[in-house]
Amino acid sequence: MKKLINTPESVLTDALTGIAAVHPELRVDFDHRLIVRADAPKAGKVALVSGGGSGHEPLHGGFVGPGMLDAACPGEVFTSPVPDQVLAAAKAVDGGAGVLFVVKNYTGDVMNFQLAAELAADEGVTVRTVLVDDDVAVQDSTWTAGRRGTGATLFVEKIAGALADRGADLNKVAEMAEKVNAASRSFAIALTACTTPSAGRPGFDLPEDEIEIGVGIHGEPGRSRGKLQPAKDLVGIAMDAILRDQPMAAGDKAIVLVNGLGGTPLIELYVVAGEVAAVLAGQGVPIAASLVGDYVTSLDMAGVSITVCRADEEMLELWAAPVATPALRWGT
Amino acid sequence: MKKLINTPESVLTDALTGIAAVHPELRVDFDHRLIVRADAPKAGKVALVSGGGSGHEPLHGGFVGPGMLDAACPGEVFTSPVPDQVLAAAKAVDGGAGVLFVVKNYTGDVMNFQLAAELAADEGVTVRTVLVDDDVAVQDSTWTAGRRGTGATLFVEKIAGALADRGADLNKVAEMAEKVNAASRSFAIALTACTTPSAGRPGFDLPEDEIEIGVGIHGEPGRSRGKLQPAKDLVGIAMDAILRDQPMAAGDKAIVLVNGLGGTPLIELYVVAGEVAAVLAGQGVPIAASLVGDYVTSLDMAGVSITVCRADEEMLELWAAPVATPALRWGT
Repeated sequence: MKKLINTPESVLTDALTGIAAVHPELRVDFDHRLIVRADAPKAGKVALVSGGGSGHEPLHGGFVGPGMLDAACPGEVFTSPVPDQVLAAAKAVDGGAGVLFVVKNYTGDVMNFQLAAELAADEGVTVRTVLVDDDVAVQDSTWTAGRRGTGATLFVEKIAGALADRGADLNKVAEMAEKVNAASRSFAIALTACTTPSAGRPGFDLPEDEIEIGVGIHGEPGRSRGKLQPAKDLVGIAMDAILRDQPMAAGDKAIVLVNGLGGTPLIELYVVAGEVAAVLAGQGVPIAASLVGDYVTSLDMAGVSITVCRADEEMLELWAAPVATPALRWGT
Repeated sequence: MKKLINTPESVLTDALTGIAAVHPELRVDFDHRLIVRADAPKAGKVALVSGGGSGHEPLHGGFVGPGMLDAACPGEVFTSPVPDQVLAAAKAVDGGAGVLFVVKNYTGDVMNFQLAAELAADEGVTVRTVLVDDDVAVQDSTWTAGRRGTGATLFVEKIAGALADRGADLNKVAEMAEKVNAASRSFAIALTACTTPSAGRPGFDLPEDEIEIGVGIHGEPGRSRGKLQPAKDLVGIAMDAILRDQPMAAGDKAIVLVNGLGGTPLIELYVVAGEVAAVLAGQGVPIAASLVGDYVTSLDMAGVSITVCRADEEMLELWAAPVATPALRWGT
């Protein structure tokens, strides 16, 4: 294993040290392991909190800032944050209007955010939770009852975050978050496995000529193994799964995320983006907004995930609203 | 080799197709292989053109837009753009105030941009060229007389681009570009080699327990091979080389780029960023601005480059000015 780390045990703390050093607009709480907007709490604003295992950067810490998250709770690599950590985040950002938890649907995350929500309620902080479960690859997975949560998390955090920024109340923000999740579908393909610092070797074996079709963001098995195929054919498989689950037609508009899993060069992601656009164009669906790059990663895994949101005008307008975070910034 | 491509021969065209599909604010000229601001030429504004071999994305196409480049000329992977291509770019963006070529110091690039500048002059387009040669690792390298150009290219393009945006004339923009290059130093460390689509195998052999210290962005040999060390020690080697070449002291301010080479997870880059900040803090130098992420890549190479610019107030102010490109965007 070759990684730019000091020790496997100190990766998260050392990364938080780096975040604190280069992002003065954020506050890093090393005791609780939180990344918080430096100006939190914002009185009267619904606060958004997300989190999950580390190793998916920039998710979630890279999405903390005006117009998106108020705090992120990074767990150890591929490990859920603990309830006390999430509770501390909720208390740090609650400005009196309540807190929305954005939770990817993994059993550990769901349980720990649920416990934190109960603890928060005991302390007078109103919490609502949205579960993100956009991955159409498999119904139940290694660490999931139901579908896994992946790229749509970014859409939920951006769009609901923009609505919160405008002063909407907790129920309205939560409803929008649910609506965005319901409108989004994802599918991922891995070319290689990823290696966690603590394990020191790839999380699963993938022969040199095989790929994992429908992989999860921790390397969980997908639908099948297969031979490597041209990008056009792989995108065909992914988009077929996405559009079977949520058909789109002329008149619909898409927000598209072509997301690198960590080890795939950007030039390849643009090749994929071109094929995604061609499939959508074949349905008469224009790409109204898009991101191409590494946003929801799996450490050093080579591969791509595609997320498509069937966006209404309100979502598009909120998507375009100003945001100022380490990984997503425009309009400010 | 596992890559998300259709064929090795079509990678560049297919990637340009993707760029055209998701970036309507850019114009892709498939015949000449150019990425151009859709609103070019801007009358009376000095235009900036850069380019080089593909495989370093988002450099340069991802930096085309208001406040930065007017056009980028991507060559084939790790291959210089051709003179006619660069000439076409210059003609496409010249708004009557002349064109600045930003050229990384590699022999092929230098020669082809020089030829293009002569052809442009014949057609009445005034061109000035700035050579970027910030890599302190080695004096001459595989494809270089003198130092290689790397991360400082981004600093030059951003800061000189902002000055051009404000209406400065060609000489002023070129002087600023030279000033930024002269104030910047880089050093890179590779953990793995990279694989070009056409070669299909790693460009050099790097044993499982060794790293290349001072590597170039095409995998050119650096200063030495060594065993993998903790991030703190590797950063120490890199920062020592940078600060020996350009000492910094209390009162100086730094713009820092902690740049992933393509295959390194963001969490590791933040570990590196923390160590870079600690070294600079030891010199009494605050990080006034920074970027952490994949900006000047080497396909799927795992590793990091560190670039430090000793920035004066004018550079810092121009750095903060609005920019709207696929890979760098703020203030708009």
